[in-house]
Amino acid sequence: MKLSLDAMGGDNAPDINIDGAKLALQELPALQKLYMVGDEDTLKKMCDAAGIGGNPRLEIVHAPEVVGMDESGLAAVRQKKRSSMSISVDLVKDGTCDAVLSAGNTGAAVAASTIKLRLLEGVERAGIVSPIPNIRNYVLVSDTGANPDAKPSHLVGYAVMSAMMARYIYNIPNPKTGIMSNGTEDCKGSAFSKEAYRIMHHLAQAGLLPLDFIGNCEGHDLLESELDIALTDGFTGNILLKCVEATAKAFAHMLKAGIKKSPLAMLGAIGMRGVFKEIGNRMSADSIGGCPLMGVRGVSIIAHGSANGTAILNAIRMAEGMHRNNVNDRIIEAMGPINAELQGMDSWADAPCAH
Amino acid sequence: MKLSLDAMGGDNAPDINIDGAKLALQELPALQKLYMVGDEDTLKKMCDAAGIGGNPRLEIVHAPEVVGMDESGLAAVRQKKRSSMSISVDLVKDGTCDAVLSAGNTGAAVAASTIKLRLLEGVERAGIVSPIPNIRNYVLVSDTGANPDAKPSHLVGYAVMSAMMARYIYNIPNPKTGIMSNGTEDCKGSAFSKEAYRIMHHLAQAGLLPLDFIGNCEGHDLLESELDIALTDGFTGNILLKCVEATAKAFAHMLKAGIKKSPLAMLGAIGMRGVFKEIGNRMSADSIGGCPLMGVRGVSIIAHGSANGTAILNAIRMAEGMHRNNVNDRIIEAMGPINAELQGMDSWADAPCAH
Repeated sequence: MKLSLDAMGGDNAPDINIDGAKLALQELPALQKLYMVGDEDTLKKMCDAAGIGGNPRLEIVHAPEVVGMDESGLAAVRQKKRSSMSISVDLVKDGTCDAVLSAGNTGAAVAASTIKLRLLEGVERAGIVSPIPNIRNYVLVSDTGANPDAKPSHLVGYAVMSAMMARYIYNIPNPKTGIMSNGTEDCKGSAFSKEAYRIMHHLAQAGLLPLDFIGNCEGHDLLESELDIALTDGFTGNILLKCVEATAKAFAHMLKAGIKKSPLAMLGAIGMRGVFKEIGNRMSADSIGGCPLMGVRGVSIIAHGSANGTAILNAIRMAEGMHRNNVNDRIIEAMGPINAELQGMDSWADAPCAH
Repeated sequence: MKLSLDAMGGDNAPDINIDGAKLALQELPALQKLYMVGDEDTLKKMCDAAGIGGNPRLEIVHAPEVVGMDESGLAAVRQKKRSSMSISVDLVKDGTCDAVLSAGNTGAAVAASTIKLRLLEGVERAGIVSPIPNIRNYVLVSDTGANPDAKPSHLVGYAVMSAMMARYIYNIPNPKTGIMSNGTEDCKGSAFSKEAYRIMHHLAQAGLLPLDFIGNCEGHDLLESELDIALTDGFTGNILLKCVEATAKAFAHMLKAGIKKSPLAMLGAIGMRGVFKEIGNRMSADSIGGCPLMGVRGVSIIAHGSANGTAILNAIRMAEGMHRNNVNDRIIEAMGPINAELQGMDSWADAPCAH
């Protein structure tokens, strides 16, 4: 696999990207070529200092501009054509690379990937698939922000894309898949989620979904059940993801504050150090590395702004798995018969909801 | 204040309601009369056993039916006219009581309160206001499930109702209020949240909101910022609330599992017992007691299905505060000029969004 890395993306760029590149060159022999995109002089000096400057698998590509973390994504793509992010995506567009990775501005990464790479055949909308760690393993939530104004039918694409990620990256051949709703009963939901339920239920009955559709799901299912995939619109999904992250952080914050107040608790915390570390690693976004923007041609991975070198390594690992397993081809194959069936469903789109 | 208690509501009813009634009769002298609604024979025996049977402030009202936790709310209200929940609400409707409290089926409690009590003058939709404990105090989230298909303008009512709760129950005269969105920048949001933002911004500029409107907010703001009120539709709000609860539970679950695996951690946990207990109390829904369904005539409080006696006591305390401060009158007063302004806004409802 050949990957282009937006070396200027991330709160602590380019350092984290140099760290990640070094780790990936060491640990991932399948990474044939790594293109580091950013300010050439800076990157050259830093790669030399990190001891990877002369690596034949590494190539630095100059990009004079950087997209800021607070810029409007769409405007950045339109105006900064020579940004590290834009040029990174261009390398996939022109066939030089198979995958692109950025820890920069998420909105800009989504916009650049969607506009430049275009959608896969049969996919209506691109969606971000975010693995959330839970007490069992991971639950994949999609969409977590690519498309805040989704239509119910978009959830079908998110389902198929997440299922292929579950199958080829997490080894779950028949992932349990639910729709986020305000209650698990069939009758619960908004007009949006009820329509999505109706479409998914119909496709499941027709045997066209590469997954096990289990109906509605809630917060509890994300964190403490057998659920593998949770579907939702990008607005709710983004809020949900950040609420889960923020709650875990607040919990850790309260623990730390409590420990500081009492010498006995401080002593106790020493005994519990191993447990805290294990949970910290488990909940850390760095162990996941990044979230794919699925549904576009090529592989596009978006890492957290606060990513470190390990996160970049793990994100490259994810990209390699998606490329090696031809996940995009599997999505196209699955969407064919689904879209044929959905066209037949148009006629009953306004029929009263059965649930 | 006179309150009717749905004594058969809750996972552990009627026991928890007997416990709560006993505590409330002891601790809340402002509770002039408590009507316990449910199976007369059962309640009579249990109240006698609890030593409150002869209390002149207690009256048992017979209700032969019970609404199950899994029943459809609307159907239950229509079909079970003699359920403990229906009769509890009837006691507010006919003026016998000022407030009603149920730990039963939330959907049925919302439906019964909305249909029987009707909306306050000037309020478009009722909304549930849920206090979420955070590292500072509480953040009030509304709506958390009364209305899964909200219109943007409904958020104005939720804002005013939450602000009155913040002012009179939590002593926050000018609560910092945001709209949940997929990013804090003005330009972020779904079509729904952007339109809500536009309306709220206009009303804030006009000086008509009894609160400090700060724009968009995210998960981090709920848990670790100065935010007092977060506005959202009932679908997203319900998902958000359950995700926060589930994450806190999963975190606690992981800690317990980790402690069990290591003798050193077990010893450490003993030292940290005080910290764990403090966080547990802080995050517990029981210390809040219940969430008001605001916007209906009278006071209607919905407690968690897993409520215990302390939760019932605290929910009655909340009802008393809302009644004593005439919160409903304050809402009607605030909504008058707001609605006059909103009528003038209709003409630009389809204008392009400024944000």
